[in-house]
Amino acid sequence: MSGEGDRPSGRAHPRPDMTPVDHAELALLLEVASTPKPGNVDRRRDHDDLRFEHFLAGAVGARPGLRLAAGEGSDDGRPPLGEAFERAVRGMSQQDGDNTQFGCLLLLVPLVRAAATDRLSPAGAREVVESTTVDDAAAFYRAFEHVDVAVGDPPPDADALDVRRGADAVPDLRARGLTLADVMELSADRDGNAREWTTGFERTFAAAGAVRDDEGPVTDRLARAFLDLLAERPDTLVAVEHGDDAAREASRRAAAVRGDLDAAEDLAEAFHDEGINPGTTADCTAAAAFVALERGVPV
Amino acid sequence: MSGEGDRPSGRAHPRPDMTPVDHAELALLLEVASTPKPGNVDRRRDHDDLRFEHFLAGAVGARPGLRLAAGEGSDDGRPPLGEAFERAVRGMSQQDGDNTQFGCLLLLVPLVRAAATDRLSPAGAREVVESTTVDDAAAFYRAFEHVDVAVGDPPPDADALDVRRGADAVPDLRARGLTLADVMELSADRDGNAREWTTGFERTFAAAGAVRDDEGPVTDRLARAFLDLLAERPDTLVAVEHGDDAAREASRRAAAVRGDLDAAEDLAEAFHDEGINPGTTADCTAAAAFVALERGVPV
Repeated sequence: MSGEGDRPSGRAHPRPDMTPVDHAELALLLEVASTPKPGNVDRRRDHDDLRFEHFLAGAVGARPGLRLAAGEGSDDGRPPLGEAFERAVRGMSQQDGDNTQFGCLLLLVPLVRAAATDRLSPAGAREVVESTTVDDAAAFYRAFEHVDVAVGDPPPDADALDVRRGADAVPDLRARGLTLADVMELSADRDGNAREWTTGFERTFAAAGAVRDDEGPVTDRLARAFLDLLAERPDTLVAVEHGDDAAREASRRAAAVRGDLDAAEDLAEAFHDEGINPGTTADCTAAAAFVALERGVPV
Repeated sequence: MSGEGDRPSGRAHPRPDMTPVDHAELALLLEVASTPKPGNVDRRRDHDDLRFEHFLAGAVGARPGLRLAAGEGSDDGRPPLGEAFERAVRGMSQQDGDNTQFGCLLLLVPLVRAAATDRLSPAGAREVVESTTVDDAAAFYRAFEHVDVAVGDPPPDADALDVRRGADAVPDLRARGLTLADVMELSADRDGNAREWTTGFERTFAAAGAVRDDEGPVTDRLARAFLDLLAERPDTLVAVEHGDDAAREASRRAAAVRGDLDAAEDLAEAFHDEGINPGTTADCTAAAAFVALERGVPV
């Protein structure tokens, strides 16, 4: 239940009483507190209608869904992963900022399930993903009805599966027999979070390792991890909102300030003014925070 | 269980799924996020060894104790209040900043108990306080062993009851038959949190009403409430650390910027430089946030 299996052997965990659910919630809080994360809400910056405190309430509200992901609070074993995700999103949405952490939760829910079943590793996460069903996919679609999520167009020939249809797409999902893993596979080349689902959370685990090996306050480590992630690969939310060229340009600018949080302050101001929001990179940062917390990074 | 009885009638609660435990945790988060709160860690300021992220981890870590306060997660009804408090403090201490929210939890634990039993009112809080036992007092003393709490000298003729003795004071407590309510009564004239315990949480409920009636983001409302509370009464932590005159002077300076968050920014810089930390006023602000959240203040 505690993900002990992945903890560094021979070292006492700094938070012996914290469960994967606690660490997932704390990861959401540390992600939004980490600054600068150019283009995102952080400890120093709000967006016009999306403020820091909305993320705090979103993190607390997501807990019942995170508990379902861990198999807590349910009488009949571990509830389906899609149900846990939909519950987390519904709870998250109990604040006035609308969508705060949809993408973060999409990454955290399978990782919490993996941690709670002592397999928080790329292979374990793959097992969790591969176990998803058509019902999980249906719940994922229903989750889009709770908040307004910025997404790209559906894959070619897949208009019927547009997530913006919400529950209306469920009959088409069922007709095609698509599991949640299948749905993610269809979007993996255009959505960074879907890509994590299909790659054993490759970038998440790599970033978590870097965070654990880094030094200084955990929020500085996470800010550096965000810059590295953005420098390494264009953000797919920026691509949806501003096009592929703009997403590549944002990554070039992140690469130029990589490792230098002072220089990144200026980039944060610039992205804020230009409306560039690398939100998918922030999602991966939150997921990396979770893995790093489970593996004993100090706070 | 949900404190529904105190919610404004005829209006849907903005957070239908959030329990008193959720609101207590969110209150801890909103308190530290609210800025400026001169002299305290807030969204814009850290202390040298006590940083914002320590408070985030403290809030998450306190949850199991807050759940005991609400009667959740226990097989045998509602566990004793002192046990809930000690558990909350122990969980809070799982971060590297040492004491983050001891005083906040001392106020929140009885208020969560009151909310969870549908009596979140001054009279209901008094009932909770009056129901405390010698065992609750013993657990309160044990809680001091988890973190380093700044406290004043014990009452005259009560050296044996010095909270700094921790569990060593328990035999003396038992010999005198003192309940937790009795212990608070002994300290009420020198400790702002103990005073709340003995007055039906008078200032907490008044501040919560002001927060609910105020306008704008909840974190701005809480920052204004902090200034009002500090202006109205000297902070007892400042008195312990710097003397009564310094505490009165800090309140005069707060009164001069009351209602003006821009002017309070300068005061925050000044208090930070002078090492003036009105922490007891921040505790009351967190408690007021909890009551305001239960009563439907928007986030």
